[in-house]
This record gives sequence, C-alpha cells and structure tokens, in this order.
Amino acid sequence: MTRSELFAALSARLGARFQTGAAIRDQHGRDESHLPAAPPEAVAWPLDTAEVAAIVAACAAARCPVVAWGAGTSLEGHALAVQGGIVLDMTRMDRVLAVRPEDMDCTVQPGITREALNAALRATGLFFPVDPGANATLGGMAGTRASGTTAVRYGTMRDNVLGLEVVLADGRIVRTGGRARKSSTGYDLTRLMVGSEGTLGIITELTLRLHGQPEAVVAAVCGFPEIGAAVDAVIETMQAGVPMARIEFVDEAAIAAFNAYAGAAMPLRPHLFLEFHGSAAGVAEQAETVGAIMAGHGAGAFRWATATEDRARLWKMRHNAYYAAKALRPGCRVLTTDVCVPISALAQAVRETRADIDASPLPGPMLGHVGDGNFHVTLLIDPDSAAERDEALRLAHRMAERALALGGTVSGEHGVGLGKRKFMAAEHGEGWQVMGAIKAALDPLNILNPGKIVP
Amino acid sequence: MTRSELFAALSARLGARFQTGAAIRDQHGRDESHLPAAPPEAVAWPLDTAEVAAIVAACAAARCPVVAWGAGTSLEGHALAVQGGIVLDMTRMDRVLAVRPEDMDCTVQPGITREALNAALRATGLFFPVDPGANATLGGMAGTRASGTTAVRYGTMRDNVLGLEVVLADGRIVRTGGRARKSSTGYDLTRLMVGSEGTLGIITELTLRLHGQPEAVVAAVCGFPEIGAAVDAVIETMQAGVPMARIEFVDEAAIAAFNAYAGAAMPLRPHLFLEFHGSAAGVAEQAETVGAIMAGHGAGAFRWATATEDRARLWKMRHNAYYAAKALRPGCRVLTTDVCVPISALAQAVRETRADIDASPLPGPMLGHVGDGNFHVTLLIDPDSAAERDEALRLAHRMAERALALGGTVSGEHGVGLGKRKFMAAEHGEGWQVMGAIKAALDPLNILNPGKIVP
Repeated sequence: MTRSELFAALSARLGARFQTGAAIRDQHGRDESHLPAAPPEAVAWPLDTAEVAAIVAACAAARCPVVAWGAGTSLEGHALAVQGGIVLDMTRMDRVLAVRPEDMDCTVQPGITREALNAALRATGLFFPVDPGANATLGGMAGTRASGTTAVRYGTMRDNVLGLEVVLADGRIVRTGGRARKSSTGYDLTRLMVGSEGTLGIITELTLRLHGQPEAVVAAVCGFPEIGAAVDAVIETMQAGVPMARIEFVDEAAIAAFNAYAGAAMPLRPHLFLEFHGSAAGVAEQAETVGAIMAGHGAGAFRWATATEDRARLWKMRHNAYYAAKALRPGCRVLTTDVCVPISALAQAVRETRADIDASPLPGPMLGHVGDGNFHVTLLIDPDSAAERDEALRLAHRMAERALALGGTVSGEHGVGLGKRKFMAAEHGEGWQVMGAIKAALDPLNILNPGKIVP
Repeated sequence: MTRSELFAALSARLGARFQTGAAIRDQHGRDESHLPAAPPEAVAWPLDTAEVAAIVAACAAARCPVVAWGAGTSLEGHALAVQGGIVLDMTRMDRVLAVRPEDMDCTVQPGITREALNAALRATGLFFPVDPGANATLGGMAGTRASGTTAVRYGTMRDNVLGLEVVLADGRIVRTGGRARKSSTGYDLTRLMVGSEGTLGIITELTLRLHGQPEAVVAAVCGFPEIGAAVDAVIETMQAGVPMARIEFVDEAAIAAFNAYAGAAMPLRPHLFLEFHGSAAGVAEQAETVGAIMAGHGAGAFRWATATEDRARLWKMRHNAYYAAKALRPGCRVLTTDVCVPISALAQAVRETRADIDASPLPGPMLGHVGDGNFHVTLLIDPDSAAERDEALRLAHRMAERALALGGTVSGEHGVGLGKRKFMAAEHGEGWQVMGAIKAALDPLNILNPGKIVP
C-alpha cells in the first residue's frame, strides 16, 4: 500500500476525522518544548480501540509512522512527527469507562485529562494523585511516565497504572496487568509500556489506582536564607520518614516570577511549598515534626493555607511556574529541563546548577520536586538567537552530565523525547541496546513514533 | 562446543565450585513445591559477576540451559532444570556491597537472604520490608516478584528494587535502573527483569529501597465468628485508607494447625493478624480506627503484642504456617497455591474456595495477605496417592479459574514456574505472545531457564 492509498483509505473510513490541512498538521507538530516544529502528514481522531487498531494495521501495511498525541504539553518533543506519518489525536477517546470505589480503581480512555478525571471522581471520595502540573492526558502521562508534585507520597505513573489496553505495531490489541493489586504471573508488560513514549504500542485504555481524598489537607510555605538550607531541610524531612504529600523547592528567581505573574508578594529568597495529607491528628503531628526540622535549617515563619481556596491559590501559583517564568522575559521561549539524583546528592546538584546559571547571561528560575531528588530549570531564551539557544543547551547538558556523575538520571519526569536521546547511551550503556532489541521485537517495521528512545 | 567440552572447561575454571555428583544435583533439583524433581546436569557456584558472565557465555556457545538458584524455596518449580543444563547456585554471592542510609538504599549480591540483609541493616535504623515468609534470597525474590505480609504497606519487589545488574543470555552485563527515586528515561528494564524468573537474565546485583524502622510497632490478633465477617472487616479497613503494615487472614483450619504446631491455644475460628507501624500517636490512632471497624464486624477481643518478643512469636507462628499445615498430616506433601483478586471480590473468592475445600476430602488450611486481595490454600496430600494429587490440582485449578473470572490473577506472589504456566494464555491472552517475543529477542537460543513463563 502506498502512502497516498493509505490516506485515501483512512479518509474514506474516518471522514472529517482524518485531516491533512496545513493548519491542523501544524497544531499537531509543535509542543511546549524548544524543539523545532515537525508536523505530521496527516492527523486522525479515532473514537475507539477498534479504530485505533484498524489505523495502525493500515499504517503497518503502508510502512507509515504513527504517533500518539494527547494534550501536546510535552517538554522534550516526544510526539513530534520527525519521520512524518500520521498523528493519532487521542483526545476524542476521553471517557471514564468505569469507577469502582470499592476497589479504589477506575478505567479510562487515554484522551481524558487529569483535571477532567478528578472532576469526574469528586463525588466518590477518591482522587487520582499524579500531577505533572500541565493538564496532560492520562495516555500521555503514562507514555512519559509522568510524576510531579505528589509523587513523593503517591508515586509516579509507574506506581499508579494497574493495567493497560494497548494496540501493538501490527494492530493486535493486548491487555496488560489487571485489577488485582499485585500479580507475579509473567513479564510486567504494564511497566514496560509506561514510559515507552508511544514506541511500543498505542495506549487505548488505562486502569488506574485511585486514592482516598485525605481527611485533612494543610499546605504551607516558608522561606530560607539560602538554597542549601532549604534543600538540607528537605533531605532531613525525607530521612525522618514524614509522609509528605508535596515538598517543592522554589528558588529566588522563581519567587520573583511568581510575584510578577501571580501578584504575590513573597520575600525574594528560596522557598519550600509543603502539603500534608492525613487524619486531622496525623497532619498536625507531621506539621509539628516538619516545622521543627525547617526551623533547624533557618526557615522563616510558615504561611499556612488550610482553606481549600487558599491551597488552590498556592498550588495554582506553583503550577503556573512555566508561564510565570516565561512572562519574566516577554517574547522569550522556555527551555526547561529536569534531572533526578539520589537525595544525598541533591544539595550539591542544586547548588552547582544554580552557580552555572548565575555564571551565564540567561535567566533561569529553578524549582523541583525535591523530596524525590528531582528538580527543574526553566531557561528563558530569545527565540531568534542561536547563541542563546546554544548556551541554554550547554547548561542543560552540564546539568544532565552532573546528574549522571552523581548517580542520577537525565530526566526524572520529562522523559526522553528528542531532547534527552543523546544521553541514553551514557545513562544506560548496554541497557540501551536491550531497549533497541525489545523495540525491534515488538515493532519490527519501526512505525510507532520512530526516531525516539531507542538507538 | 559440546556439552562435555563445556563441562570440562567449567570444571577447569571453577574447580570444586563445579559439581556433577548425584547428591549435589539432586539437592538442586527439588524445591518446596509438589512438582517432581528435575535435577540439573551440573551445579556451579559463581563468586562474582564476571564469573557468571563467563559461565553464561560458555553455556550460550554450547547451547546449554542455565538456571539461577537461590534458597530453593520456590512453590511452583521456578528453578527446576526441566531441560537439564547447569544450575547456578548464587548463594556464595551473598555480600552487602553498600548501604547508604542518607539515600535509604543498599546494593547487595543476589545470594543474600532477606534475614541476613535485615541483620546487616539493624544498626542503621533502616530495614528491607518485603517478607515472603520463607528466608529466600533477594535474587530469588526479585526473580519471582515476591511480596508477602508487608506488601500492603511497603509494596512488593516490583516497588522496592531500584536497579539491577543482570547478565544477559549472551554473557553481556547490563545495569538497569539506578539510585534516583524516579526516572523517565526509556523502557523500565528493572521492572521487566523483576518477575521474569530467570528467563531474561541472571541477576548479579540488586539496589534496593530501604525503609525507616518505624518508631512504634504494635501487633494484634482477633477472632471472627465466620470467614465473611473477617474478610469484610479487612475490606472496610483498606477502604478507610488505614496504612496497615500487615493484615493477615488465617482461617479456622490454619488456627488448628498453629495450635498443634506452635503450642498456641487460640479459639478455633477465623482470625486476623494485624500490625501497625508509625509514630506512637499514629499507631494509637490507627489501632483505634481499626478496632472500631473490627468490632462492627463481630470481632472478639484483641490480643495485643507490643513487646518485640511477643510480636516475634506471633509472626513466627504465621510464618511457619506452611510447616504447621504440613505437621497436621504427618508424612504428607503440601500443595500450596495462591491467587489475588480485586478486594471487592475477596469475600466471594474466599468463601467459595473454602466451600470447595470443605466439599473435598483433603485438609486445606487457608491464609492470606488479604489487604492486597491475595490468599493461599495449603492442601495436604498423600505423596503416594495420584488420586489425592489430582484432587488437589483440581481444587487449585478451580481457584485459579475463579480468580480470573473475578478479574484477578492466578498468582499474587508465588509466580508462574511450572505450576501456573497452563493459565498464562487465559490470564494474558495475546499478551503472552508479547512475552514470548521479548524472550526470543533477549534469549534467542532459549538457554535461560527454558520451559518457563513464555509460550
């Protein structure tokens, strides 16, 4: 089958849900990364698993690349169609298929966003905790092995996906995992698919682990005299085993961005944003323990947020960090990157990264899910300056190499995409070849998101 | 290379650490399952990763099966050399290579047992929580994706292995995962290896997540008027979000076994064994919540165990369930099997299984890690009676099919081995073929524990 025969067949089958117009292709050819646009040749909007399977099987027959697309919030170019082909826009497969409160799980289609899912769950007393900041789709979050602010307590997508339905490269439909809380029967295909960034299969259904909405939630913010003190306070908190729901580091430059963007008036110093979940007594006990630890590291007074609206305002500010940073330099492009290191190396990694940025002409607020050892920089560059882009990439590169030298990983949660592929050999060594062998076995024609992850 | 040339080469290299005598082979050809012995042709005791790599490479050249062996406590015949070849006894690779209290992790060789590891950790204030009952090796526990009594709180081996060093089928050495608490860089090879039962690689090193020894630990036992009440109490406890450290169901037949074997004098009714971990105040709050839930389901008085020795006695009794059951019928063989179901289906699964066993002539105490929906039966059979063996297998088969019908898995923690391979197609459908494709890609000569897991 030629490419044009394929497109004719898909157009006949899908009607207006198959488009090749430039504007549509362009919309599906750029994400929130700094990477150049790479529009697909066509965009399809499947409505169900059978349609996804039929499209993929047809693409296999035509040797045409297929790239799954969610909310387009990738920060590393995961879904850019660098070898052309078809983007599958999964956003019309956005239903909640089942919620089972008694088992604390649910089954959803991949195109639902995390905010829509949590809105649907509100009355059940349950919630889905993984929160990467962006209102990403669950399919995209599974593909990238997303995590975010609450991973320190509730885990990442790795921990919260119980099972998947996946369309393989030849159009076969497989179910991985299940609804039992654990199983020891065979290879963990669920965990293999989570984080595979659409290179091993197209996720068409997810069964997710839910958590009880905590009886009590309290948030707080406190400032520190300098970065090292804030990070050391986090390390001590984690080592004390306090079950923090969120423990987020925000540096002075990020605070300046928040003040400007959200009209906050926070003192210009490094801060921690904290959240405690538990019973009323449990939260009070956690807050007391953490308060004492923070004070021991020179923290200023805690600003508490107990009411729902106060907490919402606080976390909205934190979640808008990307946009707040962007607004610091009108017209700029953001090059954001993340790494994750063992917590014992966190203070060194954060300090050296801050010094690197300070020695560079680029503005670069830093923040991070530091309870996991994970932190980000958002470098603000002139989109028309190759020199600034190169400088930002140099800083990001040094940050990745530093993470590897400290026993960490070049990405805690943003994923590989295009941006981090160059570090895969350094991070995984021979393991990268093993990934290639798995890819070749499951997608021998290399049609699923080609050009990503594997050698 | 012929098999005899291989053996001569290995004998020259390993000296007394390569044995072909019948007694040694026999010791490495039987486990704790009901399955017939399958001795290997030879046994080798490697001392380090380089030796494992050399042995596996030589076996590849000679097309000779290689089967990793730990403590020999498998319940499903995982390590039986059903296609001959060499058993690699990993028990001399039993060192703790590093403990990093500040990162709450450690790196160990695969032959160390969980009790030896926890003894080595004692002074650090940390512990490794996964506890399958048997004093298995960490390599075996990872291979089987073991869990046990504490998984409800601390997770299974899936959750507690941060990274691995693995020798592949061609002798290459790969490192998977790392020491960062999370990563989104590429396929999750760690989770792929955990639970692969030695069919994808030989584990030569494990980096494990450790947990802080809880400030307060309290255990308790309470009896219930009947099975359903005990299971319903568990379901309500889990749904209330109480972070139980252990919540174990033991039926009346198992209590009778404990009384006889451990000299206990517990009332003959179904019981729950509970353990609470946390701060002193947190444990008190949990115990109060759970006490109220249990009372609502007709529980008798709690028998508390706060002192370390009392708790040790309690859990030793629970851990010796296999031997206690075996002692109920002198000279018998135990056929034990486990399944895991969504918690909403647990009461039905347990009740129907109990009725099945009651309608059979075989004694069969039941127990389970019911907080996960996981439970076991230990069927006691006359080793010389084919009829009893067939009857036990019939019961186990019905239990597995019931678990699948209820949305569960045919094994929560015992693994596939030989015993559960017949259910793989029913549980995984097309996914089983995917497992086969991965196996073929990583072990094209099929030398790593052949005859297990895949089609």
